[in-house]
Amino acid sequence: MKNYCFGIDVGGTTVKCGLFSTVGEVLDKWEIPSRTEDGGKNILPDVAEAILSKIQERGLDKEEIAGVGIGVPGPVDDDGVIACAVNLHWGRIDIVKEMEALTGLMVKAGNDANVAALGELWKGGGMGYHNMVMLTLGTGVGGGIIVNDRIFAGSQGAAGELGHVHVEDAITDPCNCGNCGCLEQVASATGIVRLAREELEASDEPSLLRDGEVSAKTVFDAVKQGDPLAIRVAERFGAYLGKAMASFAAVLDPEVFVIGGGVSKAGSILYDYIKKNYLHYAFPTARNVAFKLAKLGNDAGIYGAAKMVL
Amino acid sequence: MKNYCFGIDVGGTTVKCGLFSTVGEVLDKWEIPSRTEDGGKNILPDVAEAILSKIQERGLDKEEIAGVGIGVPGPVDDDGVIACAVNLHWGRIDIVKEMEALTGLMVKAGNDANVAALGELWKGGGMGYHNMVMLTLGTGVGGGIIVNDRIFAGSQGAAGELGHVHVEDAITDPCNCGNCGCLEQVASATGIVRLAREELEASDEPSLLRDGEVSAKTVFDAVKQGDPLAIRVAERFGAYLGKAMASFAAVLDPEVFVIGGGVSKAGSILYDYIKKNYLHYAFPTARNVAFKLAKLGNDAGIYGAAKMVL
Repeated sequence: MKNYCFGIDVGGTTVKCGLFSTVGEVLDKWEIPSRTEDGGKNILPDVAEAILSKIQERGLDKEEIAGVGIGVPGPVDDDGVIACAVNLHWGRIDIVKEMEALTGLMVKAGNDANVAALGELWKGGGMGYHNMVMLTLGTGVGGGIIVNDRIFAGSQGAAGELGHVHVEDAITDPCNCGNCGCLEQVASATGIVRLAREELEASDEPSLLRDGEVSAKTVFDAVKQGDPLAIRVAERFGAYLGKAMASFAAVLDPEVFVIGGGVSKAGSILYDYIKKNYLHYAFPTARNVAFKLAKLGNDAGIYGAAKMVL
Repeated sequence: MKNYCFGIDVGGTTVKCGLFSTVGEVLDKWEIPSRTEDGGKNILPDVAEAILSKIQERGLDKEEIAGVGIGVPGPVDDDGVIACAVNLHWGRIDIVKEMEALTGLMVKAGNDANVAALGELWKGGGMGYHNMVMLTLGTGVGGGIIVNDRIFAGSQGAAGELGHVHVEDAITDPCNCGNCGCLEQVASATGIVRLAREELEASDEPSLLRDGEVSAKTVFDAVKQGDPLAIRVAERFGAYLGKAMASFAAVLDPEVFVIGGGVSKAGSILYDYIKKNYLHYAFPTARNVAFKLAKLGNDAGIYGAAKMVL
């Protein structure tokens, strides 16, 4: 009887670990450091050690463990092979094969953004849906696509790079990907600051944003107080994102969009600016798509990783 | 032993029918009219009759028939239910259930653009690949997405509406879908004529396009003769399409793009204009995607329909 599984979310600084019941309760949650030195060669052995110690500590039998799901920051194909993970100093690694050898357990691996999307579908903002597009608006813009309850990884594990669709010809400074004018440059937390700076520099108009630090949070706080300049920033953000999401819907025909990441803490006011633009540009059949906020925060990765093996 | 299958492509005027061997040879190919009167209620019975007659005519045993695949012009979900087909005067129809009852054979149904894409993957421009995006540049711009050798239909059967992503804010006259600025309005045969008219009206510059009818064909013929105005039209067409295809690749991570439809008759010169823009905007991992021309023409639909049941 398989009663347990592990969900592992490998980041550049720490590895988040979760022990789950197979119905989706978190029974234990802990972190270990990501040892990225020496080409990150200790990371998987450290994770395996953490899992085996937890099994021993809890007095579990390996027969009771459905498996180990693991999310990693890079493109992972359907066979669980990662092409590279810059933040971990990894080249090509067959994660599934290595982790299965290290743990003696069944292993599945996926890209961290895709895995987080699966977590939100299972126990978060996407619960009850089967076809979902998740956008994580943080320092960058991450994307995760779920089709019929499964991660859509693409031919090389690089599907769902939603932050890197081109949306603005006028941007001439490069995105982290090397291109110019990516969605990430205008719809991430960093992108919102870019838009706010542009508006602040374009005039001497008074604004709450002229006092202190400008961040995605201060922009949306000012929007809530009716600050006209901040509202223009939100309008521009919403136009870029709503239009891009309409394109994603024309391509993918999802049931729901889930929006997560630090920017989503602004709450449902985000919808006001995104959704009116979305509806303006959406193909008729896509206008009934649901919009939800992510619910699991930083735990989405361990939830999604656990779900992969169930 | 299943040695045969049928591939059916239902259009607004005629139904194309094919009898195939299960290895993919066309053994027989014929057409029947699409009787769209009375809400199109005769269409499926007519198709069933055509199939059963062919089985009798050829002296086949139903046990030898793997099944019937059928492509229809409208959104078809994974269960073979179509929501509506304007050109056939159809409302919601459970095609699989009706056709199975009418023929006693296993039936699969799909959207015609998706089915044509599957045909090109099986025996046309996409042969040897498993993950493909097909663009059909005809009167409109159709799209078909294949993932791991299967049609990607989306939650409502409306995935791959690639002609209806928004690409141009300056267009204020509506597309057939009701929105303004769709890819279809600048990258279809009709869209190329729009771009050519704009260039012709913008100046008195001499051009081969000033003599006689302007069409996608005359534009690309003039491009081949070095006509500067026609080249500007091709550049604009290529910029819109290449940029949009870079977005599709960031979302879907395909192995190959296949370009079909009347515009594709211009041949590989199309690539020159599409690909340089594609490469400029593509996410790094997507720059190695292959570009191919469709090969099956109007037969792609019957090939893809046949492949659905194999």
